Amino acid sequence: MKCRRCHAEAAVALPSHNSAFCPECFLDFFSRQVSRGIEEHGLMTKSDRVLAALSGGKDSLALMLELSRQGYDVTGLHIDLGIPGSSAEARAVVERFCARFGFRLIVRETAAEGLAIPDVKEAVKRPICSVCGKIKRHIFNRVAREGGFNVLATGHNLDDEVARLTSNTLRWDMGYLADQGPMLEDTEGFARKVKPLWRLTEYETANYAFLMGLENHYAPCPYSQGASFSTLKSMWIGLEEKMPGRKMHFYQGFLARGRSAFRAVAPADSEILAPCPSCGSPTSSDVCGYCRIRSLVLGRRHPGTSGSPQADGTAAGSQELDTSPAGK
Amino acid sequence: MKCRRCHAEAAVALPSHNSAFCPECFLDFFSRQVSRGIEEHGLMTKSDRVLAALSGGKDSLALMLELSRQGYDVTGLHIDLGIPGSSAEARAVVERFCARFGFRLIVRETAAEGLAIPDVKEAVKRPICSVCGKIKRHIFNRVAREGGFNVLATGHNLDDEVARLTSNTLRWDMGYLADQGPMLEDTEGFARKVKPLWRLTEYETANYAFLMGLENHYAPCPYSQGASFSTLKSMWIGLEEKMPGRKMHFYQGFLARGRSAFRAVAPADSEILAPCPSCGSPTSSDVCGYCRIRSLVLGRRHPGTSGSPQADGTAAGSQELDTSPAGK
Repeated sequence: MKCRRCHAEAAVALPSHNSAFCPECFLDFFSRQVSRGIEEHGLMTKSDRVLAALSGGKDSLALMLELSRQGYDVTGLHIDLGIPGSSAEARAVVERFCARFGFRLIVRETAAEGLAIPDVKEAVKRPICSVCGKIKRHIFNRVAREGGFNVLATGHNLDDEVARLTSNTLRWDMGYLADQGPMLEDTEGFARKVKPLWRLTEYETANYAFLMGLENHYAPCPYSQGASFSTLKSMWIGLEEKMPGRKMHFYQGFLARGRSAFRAVAPADSEILAPCPSCGSPTSSDVCGYCRIRSLVLGRRHPGTSGSPQADGTAAGSQELDTSPAGK
Repeated sequence: MKCRRCHAEAAVALPSHNSAFCPECFLDFFSRQVSRGIEEHGLMTKSDRVLAALSGGKDSLALMLELSRQGYDVTGLHIDLGIPGSSAEARAVVERFCARFGFRLIVRETAAEGLAIPDVKEAVKRPICSVCGKIKRHIFNRVAREGGFNVLATGHNLDDEVARLTSNTLRWDMGYLADQGPMLEDTEGFARKVKPLWRLTEYETANYAFLMGLENHYAPCPYSQGASFSTLKSMWIGLEEKMPGRKMHFYQGFLARGRSAFRAVAPADSEILAPCPSCGSPTSSDVCGYCRIRSLVLGRRHPGTSGSPQADGTAAGSQELDTSPAGK
């Protein structure tokens, strides 16, 4: 197979684009998809201060590298979750990656806030993935506010977005359907959230990471077995094989037509946000979700104390930001 | 496994209902699903005059039998498509079925109107399935009008509906999404269309047909290989296996929430219908779709004539009804 662009030997076949590329032209294709994805939905400009979430997975590293190559002002944030057999390796990958390319990196440890994920898992009854997600988003928002970042970028790719859209559609969850997309606008207390890789598949990102010589964090989280839309993702592999291009067509059709229908009928967001009395984050409940989790975990460890964040002083007086809902 | 209801030996397992039934209780379950499906969406009453489309497949026969058992005033309509190796057998199955149960049956032959499907296939360039569907719907509507039937019933089951909904959703086809459902209201010139089996899967209908000793028309149409949403149906088999009940949940969620969103933004149907100058059917074009097909096929056969329906007299002066759009 020949490269569609320069007719050299092709290295990456892309049936959904009816194309194949040599390494150099593929990297060019990848860059163009990222900039097109940013421009089409006005995700950000070169004057924005961007904080990129770096888990250590190929998507997050590809995101950071490509945004930097395109001249965006981007800083990495890695959240060390304190999970044995997983977190230390992920953190080391991120640290080596940022050192290699000279990227600014902020590291936060949930354990420093009393929330090493294994402890959280023991204390809460809910599925740990959603609780862990809430903690990570809270920290992501807080670091953004403290550091003056106005855009939060994540490495979600087209497969992630399509799996999530399929899940939301299967449930006809009108609230999530009204909000899903490559950009979640900033609202009072929450920075804008963007997904610059939304036009690229997992396969394309993996090829980019490979061709750029990025080290990958392969150890999956030991708690997330079978999670993360795996059924819907394998369903889409089959569908895309039979109907190349369908995945992108589905997602773009949603953005162009479907979403406005859901927005037309979704109840206006009339929740009144007030500062969490414990940490100051905007919240619609009496205490924000992060502080409730924290209170549960710390209270369990020190049954004699109140268990509130103030009890051990680490979060007292800080103006932390609660997270936006999951699933968006 | 025991019958959920009477604890006799179970014959039919229904994971999506978390149930299993003995033959007798399964038939009871089937009947309740049909009546619930009719009542939930007000499909019809005992005073309606119902015309049921009988292809000879298990779904159509099960529909006719069950509507009759429940006391509905129902007449069968079989359309003989004139396809060698398929149509004669299908017609014979329907005729034996109606004779056995003493059901009223109307038979129409497309060949009598110059439209044996093999001739149509040769004359048109479009995929034959959609053209054949247009012809069948035209005849279905015309027979209903001529015979004073106010309700047209088809044997579409939950799998059919879910595959169609998935197809419509994958394309975000707002018009079709606004209209899909177990009932398409009557509009000027078109009778109400209903799908009383919408709560029942293909598997459940097959079991009903088997337990009721219905003869089935197995020979698939030789022209429809790979058509009829087969990719989407196999996709759903995998999904339902992993998430029992998801299929019904998806369809009911659409009816309860999704559809109203699409209706809120779908452009109002502002097409002005006028009688087709050739056959009298209401149409938004200058000549209705059926007459255009007919003109094409007859014109090809008798290149010297005008090729219009009047040319051979069969449709002259009749007040035929055009069909509603496909995909609803």
